[in-house]
Amino acid sequence: MAIVVMKFGGTSVGSIERINRVASHVAREVRAGNQVAVVVSAMSGETNRLIGLTQEAASLHDAKEYDTVVATGEQVTCGLLAMNLQQYGIRARSWLGWQIPIRTVGLHSAARIDSIGTDGLMADLENGVVTVIPGFQGVSLDGRVTTLGRGGSDTSAVAVAAALNAERCDIYTDVDGVYTTDPRIESKARKIDRISYEEMLELASQGAKVLQTRSVQLAKVHNVKLKVLSSFIDPENCTEDDLAGTLVCDEGDIVEQLVVSGIAYSRDEAKITLRHVPDKPGIAAEIFGNLADAGVNVDMIVQNTSEDGKTTDLTFTVPEAEADRAVTSLRDAARKGEFGEIQADKNVSKISIVGTGMRSHSGVARKMFETLAAKGINILVISTSEIKVSVLIESEYTELAVRALHSAYELDKV
Amino acid sequence: MAIVVMKFGGTSVGSIERINRVASHVAREVRAGNQVAVVVSAMSGETNRLIGLTQEAASLHDAKEYDTVVATGEQVTCGLLAMNLQQYGIRARSWLGWQIPIRTVGLHSAARIDSIGTDGLMADLENGVVTVIPGFQGVSLDGRVTTLGRGGSDTSAVAVAAALNAERCDIYTDVDGVYTTDPRIESKARKIDRISYEEMLELASQGAKVLQTRSVQLAKVHNVKLKVLSSFIDPENCTEDDLAGTLVCDEGDIVEQLVVSGIAYSRDEAKITLRHVPDKPGIAAEIFGNLADAGVNVDMIVQNTSEDGKTTDLTFTVPEAEADRAVTSLRDAARKGEFGEIQADKNVSKISIVGTGMRSHSGVARKMFETLAAKGINILVISTSEIKVSVLIESEYTELAVRALHSAYELDKV
Repeated sequence: MAIVVMKFGGTSVGSIERINRVASHVAREVRAGNQVAVVVSAMSGETNRLIGLTQEAASLHDAKEYDTVVATGEQVTCGLLAMNLQQYGIRARSWLGWQIPIRTVGLHSAARIDSIGTDGLMADLENGVVTVIPGFQGVSLDGRVTTLGRGGSDTSAVAVAAALNAERCDIYTDVDGVYTTDPRIESKARKIDRISYEEMLELASQGAKVLQTRSVQLAKVHNVKLKVLSSFIDPENCTEDDLAGTLVCDEGDIVEQLVVSGIAYSRDEAKITLRHVPDKPGIAAEIFGNLADAGVNVDMIVQNTSEDGKTTDLTFTVPEAEADRAVTSLRDAARKGEFGEIQADKNVSKISIVGTGMRSHSGVARKMFETLAAKGINILVISTSEIKVSVLIESEYTELAVRALHSAYELDKV
Repeated sequence: MAIVVMKFGGTSVGSIERINRVASHVAREVRAGNQVAVVVSAMSGETNRLIGLTQEAASLHDAKEYDTVVATGEQVTCGLLAMNLQQYGIRARSWLGWQIPIRTVGLHSAARIDSIGTDGLMADLENGVVTVIPGFQGVSLDGRVTTLGRGGSDTSAVAVAAALNAERCDIYTDVDGVYTTDPRIESKARKIDRISYEEMLELASQGAKVLQTRSVQLAKVHNVKLKVLSSFIDPENCTEDDLAGTLVCDEGDIVEQLVVSGIAYSRDEAKITLRHVPDKPGIAAEIFGNLADAGVNVDMIVQNTSEDGKTTDLTFTVPEAEADRAVTSLRDAARKGEFGEIQADKNVSKISIVGTGMRSHSGVARKMFETLAAKGINILVISTSEIKVSVLIESEYTELAVRALHSAYELDKV
C-alpha cells in the first residue's frame, strides 16, 4: 500500500459543503487502496479574521501569542474534516501539530520545520485510519504553538510527505495545474503535464502563485513528487485525465524538455536608480547594507562599468510595497553626497521566461529581446540565471509582452 | 504574596474593547501585589458558531473531534488577552490545557478534571508573569483535546484555584453578585454579601444562573473562596464596595444565618403524571429505568400511597426540553397496559426557598404554603431537602409567587 499526502487550501475547505467534497476526494484515494494523510488550511477568511483580532488586541504582538491565536484556524478545519470523513464511514482522526509532534525551530510566526514524529501517524495509517493534519502549524522545543508564516500549509504537506516517505504529495488548489502562463492574460495558455523542480522554483519566485517557493524547495531536497490539481473536480465522477494535474518532479522524469516551459510576470515591482554613484570599492556594499538593515528585499541589480571611470548609475528592483522604505533608507547617504539623485519608478513589471532547456540551447534570450523589440517594448533591466531570463518593462506592456512571448516560444502548441 | 484566580466569561471577553477592560482588572490585582492566574471563556457567540460548524459537518459527531474544534474558542481568547496584557506592560503568557496540563478523565465533551500540573504555572506566577488559562478545556490521558461541557469554565477556574492553593477565586460575570431573587422579577431583590456553599448549590441547581452547580460543588470540596462580581465595573475608578460582590464561603464564615437566603425559580420544567400505576414492587424501578435509558433527567418525584391498595398516581418533573422524549419512552409500557394515561404539562414553574437557617427553624415550609395560598396559588408538587423547599405551580403565577415569598421572608430588608 502506498502512502499519499493530500493537501487542501483555504478555498477548498471554505465551507462545510466544500469540506464534504474534500471528504469525497479522500474517499476516492482510500478506495484506491492508499493510506492517506490529509493536510488542511484554515477555512478561507478565517486566518485573516484571527489576524485582525490580534491586531486589534495589541499593536505590537508577542509572536508566541499571535501563533497561539492564529493556529486555531487549521485546528478547526482538522476536527471538522475528521468528523465529516467518519460520517462517510471512513475512519479518521485529527493530529494537531503538538500531538504529532511537528517540531519547529526559528522565529515564531515564521518557524521552520525541524522534525516530524511519525510513530503515531504511521500506526494510524497502517490501521487504515486517515490522519488529518493542520498545515501551517507546529510546536517549538519548549512546547509553544508555532506557525510557519503565510502559505506555510504547502510546506507542511511536503514535509509530512517526506517524513512518511509518501509516494506522492497532491496539492489540491483552485486551478487544475501549472500553466504555461496566466490564462487570464493569454487564453491560449496550456496546462503543463510535467515540470521540473527547478523550473517550478523559478516560476513560483517569478510570480506564478500556484505553489509556494519554500514548499517546492523542500520537495526538491527530499525528492517528493508534487502534484498540483483542482479540488473542484467532481470526486464522484472524474476521469484519470481530470486528476492528471501538473506533476512537479525531477528533471530526469521528464522525457522531452522544452526550451522554455513557462512565462511568468509580476506587477509588484519597483525600480530604483541611483545616479552618479562613485566607482570605488565598498560603495555597493554600503548601499545594499543600508537596504538590508531596512528589511528591503532587493531582486535584480544592474551596474554598468562607468564611462569616465569616476561615477556610474546603479539600478535595482524591490517589491513595490518596499519601495518607499528603500528610498528612505538611502536618503541619508544621498544627502551626505555619496551619490546623486534617487529615482523610483513603480510602474514597472517583471517578465520572465523559464525553462531547463535553456541550458543546452543558445539564442533563447535573443529571441526574447527580438520579440519584445518587435512589439516596441523597451527593456529597462535584464537579469538572467541558468534556466531563466527576466526583463523589467513598463507596466502597461505587461499583457502584450506575455502574449508575444507565449507565442514566440510556441507554448500554445501541444 | 497571595495567588488570585480571576475568571471572565464569554460576555466579559466578547470584544477586544471588553478584553481591554479585563486587562485593566488584571492590572489592578497585579498592582495590589497579587500573583494572578486568569481563566477565560470563548468570546461570546464563538462557541455556538463552532458547535454550528460541527453540526453541519457531521450529524453524529465524534466527541474527540468535536472537542478539538470547540476548544479553539478559549484558545483564541487566551492568546488575545495575553498579548493585550503585554500591551499594558504586564508580563503574561497563555497556558493551554495540554501545556499545563489540565488532565481530564471521562467522556469527551463532558470530561472531568483529574489533575492540574502546577510546576509551569507556579514558576511563571513566582516570576510575576500573569498566566492566562483557557476555561472549559483539558487534555485526556492519551493526549487528545477534551472539553468539560457547557459552562465548564467556572469549574476550570475553581479547579485551578484549588491546585494553586489560591486565596480567592473571583468569578467576573455580567451581574454584580448573587441576589435574594431575580431582580428582573422583584425590584426589591438585594445583593447577598455572603452565602454558604450549600445555599449557593441549591440556588444554582434551582435556577439561579450566576454560577454553575458543578463549580460550587468543587469549591465546597476544596474550600475555595468564590467571589461573584461584575466585570462591568470601571477598573480604573472603583471602590472596595464595587468589588465586594458576593462571597460564597463556608457556613462558619457567615456570622448570622438568615432562615431563608434566597428565592429561586425555573420555568424550564414539565410535569408528567402517570395514572393508575399498579401499587406493586418494581414498577417505579421499571418506569425510571426507561427514563434513564432515554437520557431523561428526572427532578421531583411524588407518589402517594394508594387509596385502594391497587393503583396509585405517579407524578414527576423533567426539564421542559426532555418532556417529549420522556413521554415517548414511556408509551410502550402504557400501551402494554402497565399503567393508565400519561399526562404531560409544560405550563409549570418550580419555586424554591433556600436557606441553611431552615435546619434550626421550624415553620419555614408552612409560611411558604400559607403565603402562596393567600395569593390563590395552587401547589401541584412539593419537594424538600434539608435547606430547601421547592413547589411546582402553574407558570402564570411565577412572578406573583416570587414576589410574595420575597416579602414574606423579609428578604427586601437589610
